Amino acid sequence: MQSFIDSLPLIDHHCHGVVARPLERPAFEALMSEGHKPVAGCTQFDKPLGLVLLRWCAPQLGLEPHAEPEAYLAARLALSPEEVTRRLAGATGVSRLLIDTGHRSDAILDPAAMENVTGIPAAEVVRIEAVMEEVARTGPADGAGLRKAFDDRIEERARGAVGLKSIVAYRTSFDIVQCPPTLAEVDAAGSRWLAALAAGRSRRLEDAILIRYALFRAGELCRTHRYPLQLHVGFGDADIRMPKCDPTVFTPFIAAMEEWDVPITLLHCYPFIREAAFLAEVFSNVYLDIGVIQNFTGPSAGRILAEAMELTPFYKQLYSSDAFGLAELHFLGARLFRNALAKVLDGWIAAGDATPAKAEAIARAIASENARRIYPIG
Amino acid sequence: MQSFIDSLPLIDHHCHGVVARPLERPAFEALMSEGHKPVAGCTQFDKPLGLVLLRWCAPQLGLEPHAEPEAYLAARLALSPEEVTRRLAGATGVSRLLIDTGHRSDAILDPAAMENVTGIPAAEVVRIEAVMEEVARTGPADGAGLRKAFDDRIEERARGAVGLKSIVAYRTSFDIVQCPPTLAEVDAAGSRWLAALAAGRSRRLEDAILIRYALFRAGELCRTHRYPLQLHVGFGDADIRMPKCDPTVFTPFIAAMEEWDVPITLLHCYPFIREAAFLAEVFSNVYLDIGVIQNFTGPSAGRILAEAMELTPFYKQLYSSDAFGLAELHFLGARLFRNALAKVLDGWIAAGDATPAKAEAIARAIASENARRIYPIG
Amino acid sequence: MQSFIDSLPLIDHHCHGVVARPLERPAFEALMSEGHKPVAGCTQFDKPLGLVLLRWCAPQLGLEPHAEPEAYLAARLALSPEEVTRRLAGATGVSRLLIDTGHRSDAILDPAAMENVTGIPAAEVVRIEAVMEEVARTGPADGAGLRKAFDDRIEERARGAVGLKSIVAYRTSFDIVQCPPTLAEVDAAGSRWLAALAAGRSRRLEDAILIRYALFRAGELCRTHRYPLQLHVGFGDADIRMPKCDPTVFTPFIAAMEEWDVPITLLHCYPFIREAAFLAEVFSNVYLDIGVIQNFTGPSAGRILAEAMELTPFYKQLYSSDAFGLAELHFLGARLFRNALAKVLDGWIAAGDATPAKAEAIARAIASENARRIYPIG
Repeated sequence: MQSFIDSLPLIDHHCHGVVARPLERPAFEALMSEGHKPVAGCTQFDKPLGLVLLRWCAPQLGLEPHAEPEAYLAARLALSPEEVTRRLAGATGVSRLLIDTGHRSDAILDPAAMENVTGIPAAEVVRIEAVMEEVARTGPADGAGLRKAFDDRIEERARGAVGLKSIVAYRTSFDIVQCPPTLAEVDAAGSRWLAALAAGRSRRLEDAILIRYALFRAGELCRTHRYPLQLHVGFGDADIRMPKCDPTVFTPFIAAMEEWDVPITLLHCYPFIREAAFLAEVFSNVYLDIGVIQNFTGPSAGRILAEAMELTPFYKQLYSSDAFGLAELHFLGARLFRNALAKVLDGWIAAGDATPAKAEAIARAIASENARRIYPIG
Repeated sequence: MQSFIDSLPLIDHHCHGVVARPLERPAFEALMSEGHKPVAGCTQFDKPLGLVLLRWCAPQLGLEPHAEPEAYLAARLALSPEEVTRRLAGATGVSRLLIDTGHRSDAILDPAAMENVTGIPAAEVVRIEAVMEEVARTGPADGAGLRKAFDDRIEERARGAVGLKSIVAYRTSFDIVQCPPTLAEVDAAGSRWLAALAAGRSRRLEDAILIRYALFRAGELCRTHRYPLQLHVGFGDADIRMPKCDPTVFTPFIAAMEEWDVPITLLHCYPFIREAAFLAEVFSNVYLDIGVIQNFTGPSAGRILAEAMELTPFYKQLYSSDAFGLAELHFLGARLFRNALAKVLDGWIAAGDATPAKAEAIARAIASENARRIYPIG
Repeated sequence: MQSFIDSLPLIDHHCHGVVARPLERPAFEALMSEGHKPVAGCTQFDKPLGLVLLRWCAPQLGLEPHAEPEAYLAARLALSPEEVTRRLAGATGVSRLLIDTGHRSDAILDPAAMENVTGIPAAEVVRIEAVMEEVARTGPADGAGLRKAFDDRIEERARGAVGLKSIVAYRTSFDIVQCPPTLAEVDAAGSRWLAALAAGRSRRLEDAILIRYALFRAGELCRTHRYPLQLHVGFGDADIRMPKCDPTVFTPFIAAMEEWDVPITLLHCYPFIREAAFLAEVFSNVYLDIGVIQNFTGPSAGRILAEAMELTPFYKQLYSSDAFGLAELHFLGARLFRNALAKVLDGWIAAGDATPAKAEAIARAIASENARRIYPIG
């Protein structure tokens, strides 16, 4: 299956832009890590991601596989950032980038620039918490003003997007009340948050009432535009409460979105891949990918994909790299996904569980057809 | 080990009857799914269960492996439902069916009919929540009347059964108080529930006090009859609260049953297989199977069984298909279990970790001897 | 990699002493189990640990691999306990034993005796809950007296140790308030606990306030001595509340220790290995091993190690046997670890993901270099 899968276009339904400036080693290593504090005497190349990065990306920069980190970073700095991005993010065989623009958007290329450098058509997925924070910075008079400004802004942003996204799991966890708040509750919560922002007691949106309002408003817009609401799940920042980031904790909200026929795409899911697959089996609107964890598990990415494919219906699984900042993560995401998918499907064919024709159909569905069905990227 | 294991009789300690009527495609696909709403343009054959169903069941109906769904369903409809059941559920090498009769019992064959059609001796496992619901429908005057009617009815049903079963995980989750309620509490809860039923505000038993009463009453009867209490765990309906269906959440109840020497058999367990195996290691009365998830994971069923066998003592693991409605699920359950068990044990022999004789002893224990030791099936 | 890894010295950073007396079968089997009640007619040899014990340990006692349990135990009883320990715990290739002395220390050899019998240099890790219980037994007048006696005693014990350890997961779970209590709270809690002890209503330390006090006091001492605080995670006694033993539940405490640069070493971690690996990725101070679960999963230990190596940075993983009581568990821990590590790394080399030189560097790091970096063992 490898050559067939290598030839398939992918839709990367969840990724970010790359950093446009040259990267010295500390900045490069920081982008290889979900942590915030290096360990003295240790390097991020000494982990699974480091192994596959030096194996697969070094040849793209003209080096042998398994180059030393120093040689790799020197070769990278010898090229312009655009050339690095073209060689790596542009060589993925991805046919469409769906880019989440809500995280550190000032540090990375926006969708238009990504499209320009890589040559891959790019579309935007709008992060609802970032929109709420953006309108809060415009100085609404009170909670009601915040709400109305959010309504206007999210409606406008949604028109230009192919999906919306929430990082509720990062901000409150999934363990919140899962029905819409009243407008009075929203306005009161908004006023409280604006006061906290003004007093320097808050720097980001973490209020469950406001997030619930944004989620249901996002659901309505996704229903109108007939596109998905993405939910970050599991693995990510250090300050999350992991057991409450299990997507099954969000079942009532997912069920509410099923009523509206709004696709929910669960991102990454590690270590809750089996829980996500269960939701994909029992809810008609749930989809999943394994996203960022492929790159972070490197040599073991095949195990993770195999686990996702244990139970997930073939028409419910998606591809994403969740690459952020480094063009290497775009390249590796595609490479590891193609290798892992080929390995799983070759195994099924060898065991007699799938015909080659069926395996190809499964590969096409996961690589791009499922995304094409639920995102308006015709 | 394959031929040895293929020759072993199995005891299917947890399964259901099959639907007796001919099945058109929508009804057939509905029985292939734990969901309740199909996805437009997609089919249940496009998932792991679909692959193995068409691979293994098609030859039983005279078709080539990997027949198309249309051809398979046409061949199926060309046979009488009894013939389909005989060819599939009757060809499993199962020597005893322990049938849970508490779920949609009007839609499927009862144990006597299953025995009649398949030729396999069948016995009954009584679902305690269904008994409580049954006596509630007979119109007791109040909660005390409900309790007494339940006591009488469960005692009577228990006499004809080989085990009792609870689906407390579906109804309240395992996260409930785990000591017996007082009779006054039970009677008050019963009166409340009867009023809710009469007013149409309730349609099924979800009251934690009544379920706790039923659980401890069931425990007493299991103690008397020296047979197991089965507990549904994990994977199942869409409306469960999954993290609260982790069987380790039910540790106090399990410990109480250990005091009474009542075997607790944990069903399915996915995605809590390791948690269930831990309980089987530390509690003398805990047993487990992987049940329904074998069929739903199809080509990956071997991974799941291998995970169950990581830690579980060999004298604590059981076989079940958890087949419901479709004779195919009976057939596949046995086929996938035999294949997976052979693969795990062949691996252990090849690695030098088990002798062939020991591997055979392990296979016999899991296939039938453990069930024979704890169920009164002589 | 097998011969290279077989030649590597290991640092067993978490283990216990062995029982010094001859062991008849019931006592031997009890030490093979985390349970407390045998199952009639069944034996602890009929589980994964039993398989690998008879395979690997029998030849150390002059028998063929896969000897019968009776023959094995007879050969064992024919030797002196010292000889058994020398042949098994002394033949592990371990270069340093870091011994937790806080569990049933009267039943097993202390570090000096272990060093004497095995010839392996041994150092002590002090269990903080045991120290609190020890000073409570000396009869302090009240809670303030208890606190001061604990302060003195833990400071003294810490001076002779290479690390401290907490079993908070066993006693209160990780689901507790995670900031230091006030001294007034501590003294009141101490007085209450002393009264409960005197009245026979308590037999061990389970008070969250006192444990929190001990944890932060331990953190200060670890900071001073620049050595780790070990935390027991997951798999263990029957009376734990497993979902609350997920180490991600302890994130606020871990983050507080990161502020102090105190290494936190997560022990065993099963079934929360992926959660522990996530913490090792995002917190600079988190380390992990898979400890006791290697022995309990026997033929499947390679799966468990492979899972730990999915995500964990290579500079964050450690070796431990968590052997308790039986010299066999020391021997098997090392044997299974070496085999599993060789298998994982051979797989990575075969797949092209690591060069042999890099694989050797990874093996050295996990086998001993990481432990040597964080423990003061020169």
